[in-house]
Amino acid sequence: MTAAHTDSFLDLCRAALGPQNVLTDPADKAPYLTDWRRRYTGDALAVLRPGSTEEVAAVMRACHAHRLAVVPQGGNTGLCGGATPVGADAGRNTVVLSLQRMNRVRQVDPLNNTITVEAGVILQQLQDVAQQHGRLFPLSLAAEGSCTIGGNLSTNAGGTAVLRYGNTRELCLGLEVVNARGEVWEGLRGLRKDNTGYDLRDLFIGAEGTLGIITAAVMKLFPAPRARVTALAAVQSPRAALALLAIAQSHASAMLTGFELMSAMCLELVTKHFPQLRYPFDAPHPQLVLLELSDSESEAHARGIFEKMMEAAFEAGVVSDAVVAESVQQSRDFWNLREHIPLAQVEEGKNIKHDIAVPISRVADFIETTDSLLQDAYPGARMVTFGHLGDGNLHYNVSPPAGVDHEHFLQHQDAINLIVHNSVHAHHGSISAEHGLGQLKVEENQRYKSMVEMTMMRAIKHALDPQGLMNPGKVV
Amino acid sequence: MTAAHTDSFLDLCRAALGPQNVLTDPADKAPYLTDWRRRYTGDALAVLRPGSTEEVAAVMRACHAHRLAVVPQGGNTGLCGGATPVGADAGRNTVVLSLQRMNRVRQVDPLNNTITVEAGVILQQLQDVAQQHGRLFPLSLAAEGSCTIGGNLSTNAGGTAVLRYGNTRELCLGLEVVNARGEVWEGLRGLRKDNTGYDLRDLFIGAEGTLGIITAAVMKLFPAPRARVTALAAVQSPRAALALLAIAQSHASAMLTGFELMSAMCLELVTKHFPQLRYPFDAPHPQLVLLELSDSESEAHARGIFEKMMEAAFEAGVVSDAVVAESVQQSRDFWNLREHIPLAQVEEGKNIKHDIAVPISRVADFIETTDSLLQDAYPGARMVTFGHLGDGNLHYNVSPPAGVDHEHFLQHQDAINLIVHNSVHAHHGSISAEHGLGQLKVEENQRYKSMVEMTMMRAIKHALDPQGLMNPGKVV
Repeated sequence: MTAAHTDSFLDLCRAALGPQNVLTDPADKAPYLTDWRRRYTGDALAVLRPGSTEEVAAVMRACHAHRLAVVPQGGNTGLCGGATPVGADAGRNTVVLSLQRMNRVRQVDPLNNTITVEAGVILQQLQDVAQQHGRLFPLSLAAEGSCTIGGNLSTNAGGTAVLRYGNTRELCLGLEVVNARGEVWEGLRGLRKDNTGYDLRDLFIGAEGTLGIITAAVMKLFPAPRARVTALAAVQSPRAALALLAIAQSHASAMLTGFELMSAMCLELVTKHFPQLRYPFDAPHPQLVLLELSDSESEAHARGIFEKMMEAAFEAGVVSDAVVAESVQQSRDFWNLREHIPLAQVEEGKNIKHDIAVPISRVADFIETTDSLLQDAYPGARMVTFGHLGDGNLHYNVSPPAGVDHEHFLQHQDAINLIVHNSVHAHHGSISAEHGLGQLKVEENQRYKSMVEMTMMRAIKHALDPQGLMNPGKVV
Repeated sequence: MTAAHTDSFLDLCRAALGPQNVLTDPADKAPYLTDWRRRYTGDALAVLRPGSTEEVAAVMRACHAHRLAVVPQGGNTGLCGGATPVGADAGRNTVVLSLQRMNRVRQVDPLNNTITVEAGVILQQLQDVAQQHGRLFPLSLAAEGSCTIGGNLSTNAGGTAVLRYGNTRELCLGLEVVNARGEVWEGLRGLRKDNTGYDLRDLFIGAEGTLGIITAAVMKLFPAPRARVTALAAVQSPRAALALLAIAQSHASAMLTGFELMSAMCLELVTKHFPQLRYPFDAPHPQLVLLELSDSESEAHARGIFEKMMEAAFEAGVVSDAVVAESVQQSRDFWNLREHIPLAQVEEGKNIKHDIAVPISRVADFIETTDSLLQDAYPGARMVTFGHLGDGNLHYNVSPPAGVDHEHFLQHQDAINLIVHNSVHAHHGSISAEHGLGQLKVEENQRYKSMVEMTMMRAIKHALDPQGLMNPGKVV
């Protein structure tokens, strides 16, 4: 782009957004150009901060006219570099479009159980507003204090309540989107049933900003449960944990809102680095399962369900020990054990992470097979395996053998990824369960997707973004 | 198409499918060329009945090479003519592709709570197989004895359990599709979490066969509830019914699996034409609500929930009378009242039907406003309003004033559709909630969709079916 061309573009943007929302100074731009985990740094001609749908549309029209690439960004908490510009020319031909200023809650409709929010609303704020109306917005994940609902939608975020409420996709009824040409698609429907054409909503959800920019959404709310009670159950193996899952679902059905697996190694790391967190059993067990019930009746009722469930599990020889939280605080303590696993890993030193899913019935096979392949290749490698077993989603992380330097072990990352992802593929699984592809897994994804699928994806990309301006280098 | 061209195509098909599965005799073709409600009759060069995915692909490749249009068909129970060929040239340039012979259950995976079925499996068979494995497949609708799961997916069918389990879309995890070029997309994933690209699955669902042919699917199963109990509640108005819905959801949460509204006029017709069905209250009430609870504990527990719920509803002045079913038979009797409404309408004479949805919070406003508009235009018109209130989905049907001939009243159909659909649109609703567009509502849909949305839909259609061979004249 010539200097005159650049100037005319920036002038357009300054007129549309106000000069204070067109960042061109390197220091101002910097926070938007590196991802949260500091694995990717890109460049951009400018960071644009529109405050309304009309401003997003104006910016997109300007980008379209000047053939500038656009990288949409929410809370910049993504784990795959999806919100960071790619390419040596990005400093000349790319802008970052931050949705953070679009942070209004447009409407709460308790009777329709919906909330209409702009893309920049922080997830936690959305949860809070729902709660103020006696409702639950169930999406919950580690970054909820800073991630935005627009980013959650664009990556179809998962989290801990998918078992009952589904991914972000299942929580969304309607979208407002600015497309690559700067036109506004007003699809903000709050309908439970609507069959009047192609499902554009679900096409934009999970597209990581490569097809258009989500500017607002109608999200589902649920009646707030009267009680939430958790329990920890000790089991011998992932296979036993799966047997417990079937028993739990039969007894609790939709009341079962959490089912998390944690290997002994995970708890060893947590109690090592966070000694204030108490391991609730006398002796270590090979695997723990955290179960959560959400009850529309009462805490006592939830405890009654847990009692019958655990009785059945003991009788079936599935569980070796179990403890039901006696208080809200103890429920929180149990979740704390689970939520400190990623933090304990940081303390321990870098490991090689995988965010994978397989059919629930294959989780045990997957872990056994893959553990054994890795032990053959890297004897003594330590498996930090945990995750949302109720969804078949594991954070299957590989730590070096005891005594081996963590940084040094990272040299095996590609080889280990290959072993793990080949095994995932053999078990009919997904190499990106809840984090998306971003730039991290674009190439790897093509190893496992069929040509037919890639060709259809690219045809859709070309149909909606013929100039290839929307978040290039991501997803397809 | 020249005769030689036609012959070469039919020879290809006979070789691929066996001559007995290539129907060209008018008498053999006839059952496939008229829709179930006998509103549409089309023509076709042949009706093709492939028995496997490979055979579907072979046929599609032949159609692609010969530039023949393809109308996929399941149980031929659609209500909008989506499975009937359109156009004067259909007898020369169109084939009907029936999926009925693809009727195998490929796999049941109780631990993953999934079932993999071919497109031609009858919905009821799917429900039965699930039950044999102690699981529930919740999709349920009037045509379940003859509709196919492929048709349910292609129209994103709704039914009576959407409130809890969602539409067919939400019940599907993965698809196998033969695209317009005759390539097989193997997307039969049984995963709860997968973020590795665009959501092709949800694009094919609800596309009514205009983007490709669904040949198989992985569907979700649920734990079978231990008890199902229904109740009937008498309320004064749709607005009171909405207040009851909020109370019911607060008490029963996900246990609430049915919430159906029936106006007095509906019950009057049912008890007139089916006198063996007993109206369970002493006096007529303006509106009845049928509620269903599905309970993973016991019948007694469900009754206890109903008791508390109705107590709260009486206290709030929302309900004037209520009766909880004392037996499975009585539960069935209550459902029978609801399910006989469409049959009673047939007995009474044709009326003007609408399958609409609005946000739940707007249902009462919609009914009041639209009733009043219709009374102004057609004084004395009788409203047969019923439906899935829990989803905001009404079958909002208009019968002639007493004494006016039903057939004669149909002359007002277009004018009445316009009044109703304009009102739906003004209430941010959908003119096709659960029946799809087919050929019936293609044009009408364009009145309410924005140009931006139609343009994106057509771009996607063109991307996946550039020759326009897939079910032409439907949806877009």
